[in-house]
This record gives sequence, C-alpha cells and structure tokens, in this order.
Amino acid sequence: MTTTSKQIFSTLDADGTLTVEVGEATIADPKGTQVLVKMEAAPINPSDLALLFSAADLENAEYSTGKIVAQMPEPFLSGAKGRHGQKAVVGNEGAGTVVATGDDPMAQALMGQRVACVPGNAFGEYCIADAPMCLPLGDISSVEGASAFVNPMTALGFVETAKMEGHNAIIHLAAASNLGQMLNRICQEDDMKLVNIVRKQEQVDLLKSQGAEYVVNSSDDDFMAQLRSAIDATDAYLGFDPIGGGKMVDACLKAMEQVASSKMTEFSRYGSNQDKKMYQYGRLDLGPTILTPSYGLQWHVAGWLLTPFLAKAGMETVIRMRTRVLQNMKTTFASNYKAHVNLEQMLEKDAAIDYRAMRTGEKYLVTPHS
Amino acid sequence: MTTTSKQIFSTLDADGTLTVEVGEATIADPKGTQVLVKMEAAPINPSDLALLFSAADLENAEYSTGKIVAQMPEPFLSGAKGRHGQKAVVGNEGAGTVVATGDDPMAQALMGQRVACVPGNAFGEYCIADAPMCLPLGDISSVEGASAFVNPMTALGFVETAKMEGHNAIIHLAAASNLGQMLNRICQEDDMKLVNIVRKQEQVDLLKSQGAEYVVNSSDDDFMAQLRSAIDATDAYLGFDPIGGGKMVDACLKAMEQVASSKMTEFSRYGSNQDKKMYQYGRLDLGPTILTPSYGLQWHVAGWLLTPFLAKAGMETVIRMRTRVLQNMKTTFASNYKAHVNLEQMLEKDAAIDYRAMRTGEKYLVTPHS
Repeated sequence: MTTTSKQIFSTLDADGTLTVEVGEATIADPKGTQVLVKMEAAPINPSDLALLFSAADLENAEYSTGKIVAQMPEPFLSGAKGRHGQKAVVGNEGAGTVVATGDDPMAQALMGQRVACVPGNAFGEYCIADAPMCLPLGDISSVEGASAFVNPMTALGFVETAKMEGHNAIIHLAAASNLGQMLNRICQEDDMKLVNIVRKQEQVDLLKSQGAEYVVNSSDDDFMAQLRSAIDATDAYLGFDPIGGGKMVDACLKAMEQVASSKMTEFSRYGSNQDKKMYQYGRLDLGPTILTPSYGLQWHVAGWLLTPFLAKAGMETVIRMRTRVLQNMKTTFASNYKAHVNLEQMLEKDAAIDYRAMRTGEKYLVTPHS
Repeated sequence: MTTTSKQIFSTLDADGTLTVEVGEATIADPKGTQVLVKMEAAPINPSDLALLFSAADLENAEYSTGKIVAQMPEPFLSGAKGRHGQKAVVGNEGAGTVVATGDDPMAQALMGQRVACVPGNAFGEYCIADAPMCLPLGDISSVEGASAFVNPMTALGFVETAKMEGHNAIIHLAAASNLGQMLNRICQEDDMKLVNIVRKQEQVDLLKSQGAEYVVNSSDDDFMAQLRSAIDATDAYLGFDPIGGGKMVDACLKAMEQVASSKMTEFSRYGSNQDKKMYQYGRLDLGPTILTPSYGLQWHVAGWLLTPFLAKAGMETVIRMRTRVLQNMKTTFASNYKAHVNLEQMLEKDAAIDYRAMRTGEKYLVTPHS
C-alpha cells in the first residue's frame, strides 16, 4: 500500500534555474518503528529557506499556481553543485497526527496521537517519521507543537554549550527573534546572564517587557559603549550570531577585548588573556564576515550547528532537553507566527518574498491541509 | 650593585607620537635563580615589531642617531590605549653569555655559559633571565642560538596542536618564511603531511629543494585547483596562517569544503560534516579577515598564541620540545638572517623600513655589542 501526498519540491538545475513547486509524492506504508504522520503544521525556518530558495531572485521570478521559477546567482549556484538536478524535499520539522504505523510496538503506541517530528519533508501532506524521534504532544495542538525541535533545541543548545565551556553569560544577536525570545526565557529560568543585541527600539521594549535585563540597540550612537557596559556587568565572553555577514561578530569580539584589557594591570602586545568566542549559527546576511585585528590572538569564531552539537552532548542530555521542551511547550518554548499558508499559498509571490525576508517576529506556518 | 645597559625603548603617547630610541637602563644584580646575560644576538621577530613600531608611519618619521619619532595612525593608536605613555622595552628572545648570577645553585651553574633566553628586553646590552627558562647552548654560538624559542617552539607547537586535535596533515601559509622552512623540516621528520602555500615561484623552488612534497603558489591562475588537489591528497583540514588580513583563510576553508563535499554521497544544505579549522598566529596583513558563506557551519577560525599553547600542553611536552630544539639547533631549527645590526643601526631609516616589511627570508639580527 502507498499514500499519495502533495508536497513542495525544490530543484536547482546546473544552468541556474531554480524550480520550487507543489508536486505529488508516493509514500510507502510505514515499516518497523516508522509512523505515517498527516502533517498539520510546519514552520518555515531560516534553515528551510537555505534549501527552498537560497539566494534565488524572487523579485523577478515567474509565478504560477503552486510554482515558482527563479534564477540563482553566483557564487550560490556553483556553491550548491552537489544538488544540481536533484529534486529536493523541504521542511525540517512539523507536527501532525499519526495515521498509520509499522508493526513495532513503539510505533503502534503512537497510532492516532499528535506528534512533533523532524521528517525533512514537512512541507507536505504526509510524512514518514521514526517513532523514537517523535515527541508525543498530548493536549498540545499541532500549531502549538509545530516548532518543537529546531528553535527549542537550538536555544537550549546555546545554554548547554555555554555551561559545557564554563561560561555564565552569553551574548545573542538578532535577539528579538522567536528563538531569541525563547533564549531570553530559558536564561532567566537557568540564571544564565544574557546580553541581547537588537536593531530597533521596539525590540528593546519587547525584550525588556519579557524580563530581559541587558538589551543593547546596535542602531544607537553609543552602541559600543552600551555593549561594553553590558559585557562588563555580565562577563559575557561567548556569543551566538545568526546573521553571519557584516561586522557584528567583530564588534562583539572588540567590545569583549576592550572590557577585558581595561581590567589588565599591564599592557600586553598580544592583547588580553581573556578567551573570546563567537559562534555563528546562521547566515541571515550572506555577505562576508569581516574580522579586524582588534582583539589580540585569544579569540575564536566558529560555526554552530544543532546536529553535531546533539551528537556531542550525548543521549542523556538530549533526552533531558526534549523532556524540558515538551513540559514547557506552551510557555518557555512557545512560538508565534505572522501567517498560516497552505502549500499553494506558500508559493505566491507576496508570501514568498515576505517570509524569505526573515524579519524578526514574522515567521510563517505551513498548514498543508488548510 | 647595578649594571648600566643601553637598550631600545618604544613609547607611544596618547597624541599618536611614537618614540623609539636607544636609552640607558639600570639593571639590578641578579638574585636567587636569576642570571645576568650579556646579550650578543637577538632576532627581530614579527611579534617584536608589533610592539616596536606597530603601524607607525616610518616613511615620514624623523630619524636621528639612535632615535625615531613617528606618528601612529588610527585605529592602532586607540587600540593600544593600554600602553599610552609607557616606556616599553622590546625584544622577546636572544642569546648571550651569563656574566653574573643569583645565589641559587641552578643560576650559579650557568656562570660563564652561553644561553638562549626570553627576557622581553633582548634589544639591549644586558638582560636579566630566569635560570630554569634558559637554554644552555654548549658549543652553539649566540648567533646560531639567538632564535631558539619563538620560531622553533611555534613550529613544533603547530605539529603538537595538529596531533592533539587528531590531524595528520596541516596547511601553512606564507610557508617560505624561516618558520615555514623549519616547519617543513619538522613535518618531514614527524611524517606529518604539509601543504605549503607561497606567493612566488622561487619560494616554490626553495621549499621543493628542501624536500617539500606539496607546495601551492597563490599567484598561479589555477591556485584553487592546486590547493584542492593538495588537500585531497593529504586530508589537510587544519591550517596555520601568519597573514591574518585578506581572503587566504577563506580560500583554505573553501577548498577544504569543496574537497570534503565532493566526497559526500548526498547533498546537505548545511555543507559537509568535515570539521575545518584555520588558526591565525600572526597579522602580517593588518587589513580585515574576510570570511564568505561558502563552507557550511562546520568550521573554526581562531587565534593561536605560543604562551597559552605551552600552558595547555603542559610541562612534560614543553621539556620534550625544548630538548628537541637544543639537540637540533644547527639543523632542523637553524635560522638565517639578512643582516646584523647594532642598536643604533637598528633605528636607521633604511634598516627599519627594510625589516619592518617582514619579507620572506629577510629577517634581521640585533647584535648589541657589535
């Protein structure tokens, strides 16, 4: 037996043509520990957009019902050589109802239940998921549970990373995002000091209304002084940045060094002894990252990615993190969405351009059966 | 009792005036484990230049006998706020003869011997050094032993770092330097594969004549293809860069990723699973480091500095490294110099501009008593 399922496909051809369309997939019945999930809600995360559109020109694309044909500029076309000609499914995570299962008891126990899962093709009507990876949602709705993995585990992962590396404070950039608000709640619960960096006064107000103690506005004239003062008060020498391009990582390292060196009794040509680290966990800005020689040689800039972090953290930590997420899904780990769209609406010009902008607080939710 | 010693002082005033001059210091007699070394030879290393001149304008400076007065541009003036008004001594390392000692037997045992040491004021006639840190040179001359610490321990430190982090191959930039040639010899002795990156054909020839297997010329049109092919052959996913500014660190990470992703069976939006790391151990180019979004999120760029590395490596490793240096000072760890200068000659315009350029193979040696 098989199930026919409408889902989103993204295909990048070697000539630079990107086709994103609603197509039909045939899904084999679940076997063993597999379950078949009728997908009811799936968030469009930045990590999905990297595969869905990458840097394609959506302004000048051709739009028809359930289809976008756009051009991919260089160097992104060559950079994605590995996917040329492949019809990729999209959608990291989502939530829905288990409508069929394999014969393993672990799978059968989920029959009829609402679960959150990470199938990789969540922008579709039906998905196969592995029972041990599913999070049973109980009385949590699919809309409430749609973002149970990527953001919660990432935000918790930052705090776990900080603890593992011996830090009691962190800096977070683009801090008014869904993820940032979540991190703000986690840090308050865990007594981890958090320096939030945002770009607008209304984002300052939003985070402060949610109990944030340190919020720094990068649009203010005295931004660097604000940042130094927050680092001085918190000892935040570790940061997480989803922006990637530009000079903000540099600004953070510079401010860290200025605070650290102001506390030194003696000048050192090599800068302070304070280790300074910035992780980049995203690329909202695809421009180059600029690092200036302003913080000696005791610094690190590195990519941070959820999957290798979870592998490093180990099963016990991952289970502890998942349990915490499930128990606090409606509070600490709640997400908000600007709009709900079905698969065809997701590929309309206004919607695509709107959610691809990844503006703070304007995330879209895909509801394939609506 | 005291000893009067001519030595080099570098003073940066808050108004941007940098004064580098030969002055007189009064040195108290050595106590305990201290020894007084008559300094006979001291190399001018890039790390010395950072303190001696930093980014000062040497072209338009005022020169008189034993004195340079130059202007320091921004942002280097503000960046060095910690040293404003301080009269700094200069010269990390050197070699000379012990002419007086403290009363500790360890110090007394060195009386009359030639030693290499790291006094911090090696550009001077006399220095105080700590006996346990001195390397007795035996039949090695002071000129031969002058560079017994910084370059040898740094080059050995790269190989130790690679081993500690589980790598069997490394990339080295600006690889025809004294340090690079040393690293080439060490890697051959230790069966560590080495990808040398240089800028000129004569540097390719030089390193090949010294047995280097992989030498890549960044001035060649097919540089990236050469680099990928060398990485493919060696699995070099760790690199060391003394340049800092520009796009070479980016090029290395990009080439590593291209090789790693060409070996993947499936496309991943996050790039390859291969961890990629570049250490910056210097700043020959004070311009910004440019990192582009071309290698997923599994990468690291970090500063590498000898002192924290030695602290991390532990005493046993450090002693093993020092013993190896001493036993092979005239072969593996030999250095070459373009010119010998005394303290006054060191501050002449032609000399200062020449050694500050830090051109490959053109290092100067200071011989204070010549």
